[in-house]
Amino acid sequence: MKIAILGGTGDLGRGLVTRWAKFHDVIVGSRSEEKGKALADEYRQIAEKHFGSELKGSIQGAENTQAAKVSDVIVLTIPQEYLLGFLPTLKPVIDQNKILISPVVPMQKVNKHFVYTPYSIGEPPRSLSAGEAVSTILRTNRVVSAFHTVPARKLAQLELTLDYDIPLAGDDKDAIQVVSDLIRQIPNLKPLYAGPLSVSNLLESITPFLLNLSIYNKIKDPSIKVC
Amino acid sequence: MKIAILGGTGDLGRGLVTRWAKFHDVIVGSRSEEKGKALADEYRQIAEKHFGSELKGSIQGAENTQAAKVSDVIVLTIPQEYLLGFLPTLKPVIDQNKILISPVVPMQKVNKHFVYTPYSIGEPPRSLSAGEAVSTILRTNRVVSAFHTVPARKLAQLELTLDYDIPLAGDDKDAIQVVSDLIRQIPNLKPLYAGPLSVSNLLESITPFLLNLSIYNKIKDPSIKVC
Repeated sequence: MKIAILGGTGDLGRGLVTRWAKFHDVIVGSRSEEKGKALADEYRQIAEKHFGSELKGSIQGAENTQAAKVSDVIVLTIPQEYLLGFLPTLKPVIDQNKILISPVVPMQKVNKHFVYTPYSIGEPPRSLSAGEAVSTILRTNRVVSAFHTVPARKLAQLELTLDYDIPLAGDDKDAIQVVSDLIRQIPNLKPLYAGPLSVSNLLESITPFLLNLSIYNKIKDPSIKVC
Repeated sequence: MKIAILGGTGDLGRGLVTRWAKFHDVIVGSRSEEKGKALADEYRQIAEKHFGSELKGSIQGAENTQAAKVSDVIVLTIPQEYLLGFLPTLKPVIDQNKILISPVVPMQKVNKHFVYTPYSIGEPPRSLSAGEAVSTILRTNRVVSAFHTVPARKLAQLELTLDYDIPLAGDDKDAIQVVSDLIRQIPNLKPLYAGPLSVSNLLESITPFLLNLSIYNKIKDPSIKVC
């Protein structure tokens, strides 16, 4: 399977690229092809060093739309403030076969704490979660909302086993299945289906909730476990 | 301390009344004094049977406003659809010393799943969490939002030890302290301060999220643990 990680410069992108490269051909997307290729070189060294001969996939770099064009699964590791501007540039390369994963959380810091600030789209304006915004703007129902609560800093450290539940939301059964399998390929992440894409706001809201817990209780890299 | 549990007919009310009666004088509030007293008799028998000579507090019944009038802490275990109609009846007995606890979650079932549906209050209408609605309508900042995620059915079983985190939100430091201490008196609940009352929506959203997980994954009484 070909997986594009777009804007994958942060820890979440780094973690997903290097961990999924064990099994899949991963393309690091960036605004410039050069930057994508440079990042790919860096991530490839990390993955080769960690997995050795167990590394079955590959890591390449490309400009974002080129990466999306050739991939089956596209992860939008895009900063929340750029998402609405970025999506239209993807539109020409998205067809109904491609699966999009949105880990994006629209939120803002107010004083000391974070609040959830869904996007406002359309006329009259509708309040939409990031997952819904992706589906609406790219006109596809193969959007899966996931990875909002996994601590990115830990995901980026390949030596760590991640004992977390990964709630995911989406409308397309096949896409949910594919993403659930991808989640299971990262030890010991466990996918948990949380409902249709319309409940993505409930999943995205957990990120500012966790950040606030972190701020007020000095908990480092908090995540949740359903018990 | 005197604690009123208003509308405490469900499992959450039953659990809080019987568990806090170990240390405090608890008043079961109901729409009718008779029903409040009948419930109090039932809960008192449960608490006496379970705690024996360790029972230091008492359990009485009263009409809701009478219960609130004589209490230091008031828990609004009111069905979400009655909250906005109920609060104005409380207004005459609420002063700035009383602490209000809101476990209320405004939500609706749509098809198979639950969505979070904050209240719409004022002109022009503002979208408010239950915690904010209580504070706005009763004009007090001593509101603490808590107990949205503890499985009520388990709380009502005194023989169970509850190994859960209880996120709470509120603006008044003293009120937060009092409620945190009340939470710690229920073994092994752990209060976790999650921010000002304005983030109560993040806490309340976790309830429909958990209900959806329960529906789609057949998890019984799910709760969360921060890890």
